[in-house]
Amino acid sequence: MDFDQILLEISRYVQPLFGKGKVADYIPALSAVPGTKFGMALHTVGGETFQIGDAEERFSIQSISKLFTLSLAMGFVGEELWRRVGREPSGNPFNSLVQLEYEHGIPRNPMINAGALVICDVLLSHTKDARQAVLDYMRVLSGAHDIVFDAAIARSEADTGYINLALANFLKGNGNLENDVEAVLDLYFHQCSLVMSCSELSRAVLHLANGGVSWHLSETILTPGQVKRLNAVMLTCGLYDAVGEFAYRVGLPGKSGVGGGIVAVMPREYSVAVWSPELDAFGNSMVGGAALEYLTTLTGRSVF
Amino acid sequence: MDFDQILLEISRYVQPLFGKGKVADYIPALSAVPGTKFGMALHTVGGETFQIGDAEERFSIQSISKLFTLSLAMGFVGEELWRRVGREPSGNPFNSLVQLEYEHGIPRNPMINAGALVICDVLLSHTKDARQAVLDYMRVLSGAHDIVFDAAIARSEADTGYINLALANFLKGNGNLENDVEAVLDLYFHQCSLVMSCSELSRAVLHLANGGVSWHLSETILTPGQVKRLNAVMLTCGLYDAVGEFAYRVGLPGKSGVGGGIVAVMPREYSVAVWSPELDAFGNSMVGGAALEYLTTLTGRSVF
Amino acid sequence: MDFDQILLEISRYVQPLFGKGKVADYIPALSAVPGTKFGMALHTVGGETFQIGDAEERFSIQSISKLFTLSLAMGFVGEELWRRVGREPSGNPFNSLVQLEYEHGIPRNPMINAGALVICDVLLSHTKDARQAVLDYMRVLSGAHDIVFDAAIARSEADTGYINLALANFLKGNGNLENDVEAVLDLYFHQCSLVMSCSELSRAVLHLANGGVSWHLSETILTPGQVKRLNAVMLTCGLYDAVGEFAYRVGLPGKSGVGGGIVAVMPREYSVAVWSPELDAFGNSMVGGAALEYLTTLTGRSVF
Amino acid sequence: MDFDQILLEISRYVQPLFGKGKVADYIPALSAVPGTKFGMALHTVGGETFQIGDAEERFSIQSISKLFTLSLAMGFVGEELWRRVGREPSGNPFNSLVQLEYEHGIPRNPMINAGALVICDVLLSHTKDARQAVLDYMRVLSGAHDIVFDAAIARSEADTGYINLALANFLKGNGNLENDVEAVLDLYFHQCSLVMSCSELSRAVLHLANGGVSWHLSETILTPGQVKRLNAVMLTCGLYDAVGEFAYRVGLPGKSGVGGGIVAVMPREYSVAVWSPELDAFGNSMVGGAALEYLTTLTGRSVF
Repeated sequence: MDFDQILLEISRYVQPLFGKGKVADYIPALSAVPGTKFGMALHTVGGETFQIGDAEERFSIQSISKLFTLSLAMGFVGEELWRRVGREPSGNPFNSLVQLEYEHGIPRNPMINAGALVICDVLLSHTKDARQAVLDYMRVLSGAHDIVFDAAIARSEADTGYINLALANFLKGNGNLENDVEAVLDLYFHQCSLVMSCSELSRAVLHLANGGVSWHLSETILTPGQVKRLNAVMLTCGLYDAVGEFAYRVGLPGKSGVGGGIVAVMPREYSVAVWSPELDAFGNSMVGGAALEYLTTLTGRSVF
Repeated sequence: MDFDQILLEISRYVQPLFGKGKVADYIPALSAVPGTKFGMALHTVGGETFQIGDAEERFSIQSISKLFTLSLAMGFVGEELWRRVGREPSGNPFNSLVQLEYEHGIPRNPMINAGALVICDVLLSHTKDARQAVLDYMRVLSGAHDIVFDAAIARSEADTGYINLALANFLKGNGNLENDVEAVLDLYFHQCSLVMSCSELSRAVLHLANGGVSWHLSETILTPGQVKRLNAVMLTCGLYDAVGEFAYRVGLPGKSGVGGGIVAVMPREYSVAVWSPELDAFGNSMVGGAALEYLTTLTGRSVF
Repeated sequence: MDFDQILLEISRYVQPLFGKGKVADYIPALSAVPGTKFGMALHTVGGETFQIGDAEERFSIQSISKLFTLSLAMGFVGEELWRRVGREPSGNPFNSLVQLEYEHGIPRNPMINAGALVICDVLLSHTKDARQAVLDYMRVLSGAHDIVFDAAIARSEADTGYINLALANFLKGNGNLENDVEAVLDLYFHQCSLVMSCSELSRAVLHLANGGVSWHLSETILTPGQVKRLNAVMLTCGLYDAVGEFAYRVGLPGKSGVGGGIVAVMPREYSVAVWSPELDAFGNSMVGGAALEYLTTLTGRSVF
Repeated sequence: MDFDQILLEISRYVQPLFGKGKVADYIPALSAVPGTKFGMALHTVGGETFQIGDAEERFSIQSISKLFTLSLAMGFVGEELWRRVGREPSGNPFNSLVQLEYEHGIPRNPMINAGALVICDVLLSHTKDARQAVLDYMRVLSGAHDIVFDAAIARSEADTGYINLALANFLKGNGNLENDVEAVLDLYFHQCSLVMSCSELSRAVLHLANGGVSWHLSETILTPGQVKRLNAVMLTCGLYDAVGEFAYRVGLPGKSGVGGGIVAVMPREYSVAVWSPELDAFGNSMVGGAALEYLTTLTGRSVF
C-alpha cells in the first residue's frame, strides 16, 4: 500500500467538509482551536510511519483517554472490572443519566462518561498516584516523555462539569465509587486534559493493531486476548450513539474525543489517528470520520 | 488450520454446558426440540468444508432470517433503506416498543423485530411474491433447493405473536409501513419459520466472508462494500442486547435465532454456523455462543 | 348562585379563544365539526338546570366514555379491578406504549387508552352483550333513551386505530386481556363513538356530585364510597398529561374527550358539561378548559 | 362532628398496622425513632383543636417542608415560577433523574426533590438569609417561636445526600439554578431537618383549609386563588408515586415526609397532621395513611 499517496488523497477529499461542523465551545480552551486544523498519522505493524498535515500538533485528546484508562484498569483488576461496568453499547448520548438510573448505577460501558468515572475509581484504588500513573502510561505508550496535562483545560472542565458531577454523585449514591467524588472527578478531568499529537496517539495504539506488542518498545503491552477485548469494546462502544454509523462507514475499532481526535486500528495491519476540530451532531470529528471512511475505502480493507 | 481437530475439541469443550440453558417454549414446535442437539459447520473461502454433530439436521432459523431479508432489501432500495430504519445497536430486548415510541416509529436497526417488519414491508413493495422471493434467495445462497417454510411453525408464530402484532400496528400507525399489517406479519412469520441445517446456513453466509463471492456459485452476490456494511450491522446489532458480550468473547460478526442457531463470519477466512437449542438469558444459544468463543480462541483469530 | 348570569359571562369571556385551538382531524367525522361550536350545561344537586349555546347538540363524547365504562366495570368486579389496571396518573400521552412495557402490561390507570381497553375486557367477560350494556347504562344515566353509537365514527376509529391495535395486542401478549383483541377493540371503538349533548352528559354525571344519587331517577347509582373513588380517579387521571394543569386552574374532577367535550363535578353542588371542538396541545378542549376555569373563579368554589 | 371520638376510634383502628412498615434508616437520626410512635392533631376552621397520642412530640418533617417553601416562593415570583418547574404528577420516585433528563432540567413538580431544589434556588435569589426566612415563616404559621433546624439531621443529610447532589448538579448543568449548588443544597438539607409536632404542623396548614386566613393570626396568609392552587399541587403531586392511591383512599390534598408525618386539609372544614414513623413501600407513613383514610371514612366527607 502506498500510504503516502492515500493520505494525500484523503487530505484532498475532505476539503469540502471544512466549515460544515462545529468546534466544541463548552470551554474556552477548545473553542479557541481553529476549525481548519487537519492532521493524520498512521503506523504499520511493519514499523513504517506516515503522516500528513498537522500531525505533529498537540490537541486535547478528551474522551480518547478513556481507551487508555480502561486498558490500565483491566491490567489491575482483569475480568472483575465487569461487575462494576457493563460492556454493551448504550444507544444514548455520552453523558446520559437515564440508563444509569434504570440500571441501578452500573454504567453501560467504560466509554461513556459514567463508565469512565468508575474506571477512574479503580485506578485510584490501585495506584499510589493515579494522575502520575496515567501520565506515565501515556508517555510509555507514545514514546513521548514530555506529555503533560493541560492545567487550564482541566480547570475549565472542572468549572463547567456539572453533569459529570451529577454522574459521579449518582454513582456514589448507588455504591459504585470507592473513593471520594472529588478525587474521582479530579482524575477524570485531568485525563481529559491530556494534549497529544496524531503522531503520538497513533503510536500509542499501535500495539492494539499488533497483537499487544509495541513496536517502538519491542515489548508486550497486552496479551492477544486483551487486545481482542479492548478492540471489541472500542468497536461496539467507542463512538457513543454513532457506533453503528462508524462501523458501517469506516469498519474499524475506534475511539473519538470532543477535541476532534479519533484513533482507530486495523488489526494486524496498522494504527491511525486523525484530528480535525469541527464536530458532527454526535460530537465526533466530522472531517476525521470522513478521512477514516476514505482510508478503508481506498485500501479496500476493514475488519469486515 | 486443522479445523477438523478444532471442531472436535469444541464439541468436547461445550459438554458441561448442556442442561444449563433453556429451550424456547413459546410455541410447541420449538419446545419439542431436544436440548442436547449440537451441530456445527464451517466453510473456508478456499472451498473446504468441515462439520461435526448434527450439522445436517434442519432447525428453525428464526431471527437468523433477518440477515438475509436485510440483504435482499438492500439490493432493492440501497442506502434509501436507512430513512426507514436505523443501524445503531438498540441496547434493548428484541421486541421492545419503548425505543420505537421514543424514536417515532423508526426502528433502531433491522435486526430487532420492529426493524425486520419494515424490511418485510420493503420486500412486499418490491416483489410480486415476497414469500417466494425469500425462499428463492435462501435456496440460491445455500444451494439447497428443497428449503421450505415450516407451515406449523408459521402458524404457531401467528397464533401467539401478539407483541409482533403490536409492533406492526405501531409502525403502521406511525406511517412506516406501506403494505397491510396482515401481509407484513404473514411474511415475517414465514421467514422465521424457515428450517435449515448448519451446513446450509454456513454455506449461505460464505459470501460474507469472501468479499461477496459465493463459492459454490462462483458468482458475485454482493459488492465488497455491501459485505462490509452487512457485517458491520451484524456485529453491532446481531445479538440483541448481548452485542457487546458477543463481540468481546467471540469477536466475529454474527446473527442468532431463538431456535438455537448462530451464524458468523471471519472475513477473508471462513463462515460458520452452530446450532444448539438451549438459550441463555438473552435468547441466544448458550452452547452455540461458547462454541464460537472457543473457535476464535483456538484459532487465535477474530476480526480484532 | 345565579348560574344563568355566570354561564352568560363565561360565554363572553371565552370569545377571544376561538380560532386558537385545532379541531381533531384524525377521522373525517370529527374534522367536519365547526370549531365555533360552544355549549355548556349545568345541573345542581337541588334539581335546577342551566345551559347556554349549543348545549342540546350532540357530539362525539370519545374518551369521556371511559368514565362510564369504569363505573360499570367497578360495579362488576369491585376492588379486584385494580389488580389489572393501576390508578396513578401517567404523566404520559393517552396512547403511550412506553409505560405499559416498563410496567409489564398493567396500564397506569383506566383513563388512558390501554386502561380503557382492559375495562372493555372486563365488560365483555361480565355481560352477555357489552355494547348493549354500555348503551343501556348511558341511556339510564342521562335519561335520554335515544342515545346511539355513531356507526360512521366507530368505523373510522377502527380504520385508523393502529396505535390502539398495538396497545390491545401488547396487552394480550402480556396476558392482560381475557377476550379476543378484536372484540375488545370493537367495544372500545363503539364506546368512543357515542354521541351525546352537554345537557345529557351533565345529567349523566350528576350522581357523582350528589353522593351517588341520580336526581331524575331518585335512585342510588353508586355508594358515597364509590363516588369518592371515581372522582379521585377523575381528578388524578382524567386529563392525560394535563392533570396537574387542570387541577391547578379549574380545581374539579373532570374527564375530557378529543371530540371537545369535558364533564366535571363540584361535589355536593353541581355537575357540568362543556363542549367546544378546538383542542389545545394536550388534546383537551381549549375553550372548554377556559370555561370551567372561569366557572370556578366566578363561583369562588372548587374542591380545593 | 365529634372529632375527639373520631380520633379515638382511629387510634384503635390503626393498632394492627404497627410493625408492618419500616422506619427510614438512611440517616441515624431517623432510624433511632421508635416505630410505635403515633400522634394526630386536627384544627377546624371554627377554631377548635383536637389531638391524640404523641401529637405534641416533634419529629423531622422532611419533605413536608416542600409545601411551605413552595408557598414562600410563589409569594416571591408568582406564576413566573412555572417557567422553571412543572406542576404535573411525576409517576416516578421522588429522587428520579430520568424524567429530569428527558425534560431538559425542568422538574416535573415542586414536590419531588428536583423541584424543591429549584424552589430553594428561588428563595436564595429573593431573600437576604433564606434559612432564616424559612424558619421565620414556619414560626409564624405554626405560632411556635422556638422551631429550629436540627443540626445533626441537616449534617447527616448532607453527608449521605449523593443523589440530591446529583440532582442539583444536573439542574445547574441545565441552567436551572441561579445560585451555587452548595448554597442550594445547604438550604434544602436544612428545610428537611425542621422538627415540628403534629399540633404545630396542623396549625401551620390551617389557612389552606380556611381560604388563606390563619386562625391564630386572624390574618390573611394567602388569597383564595393561591390556596386553591397550592391544594391542587398537593393533591396531584404531594405523595410521589402514590398520588392516585392517596386520592382514592383518603381523598384530601396532602403532603408526606419520610420522617413519617403527613399533613392534609379538608377545605372549608379542617386541617390535620398525623405522625407515625413506619413507612410503606412508597416512603409514606403506613399508619398515617390509614389514619387519614379512616378519618374521611368516619366523617363521610372528602373533597370528592
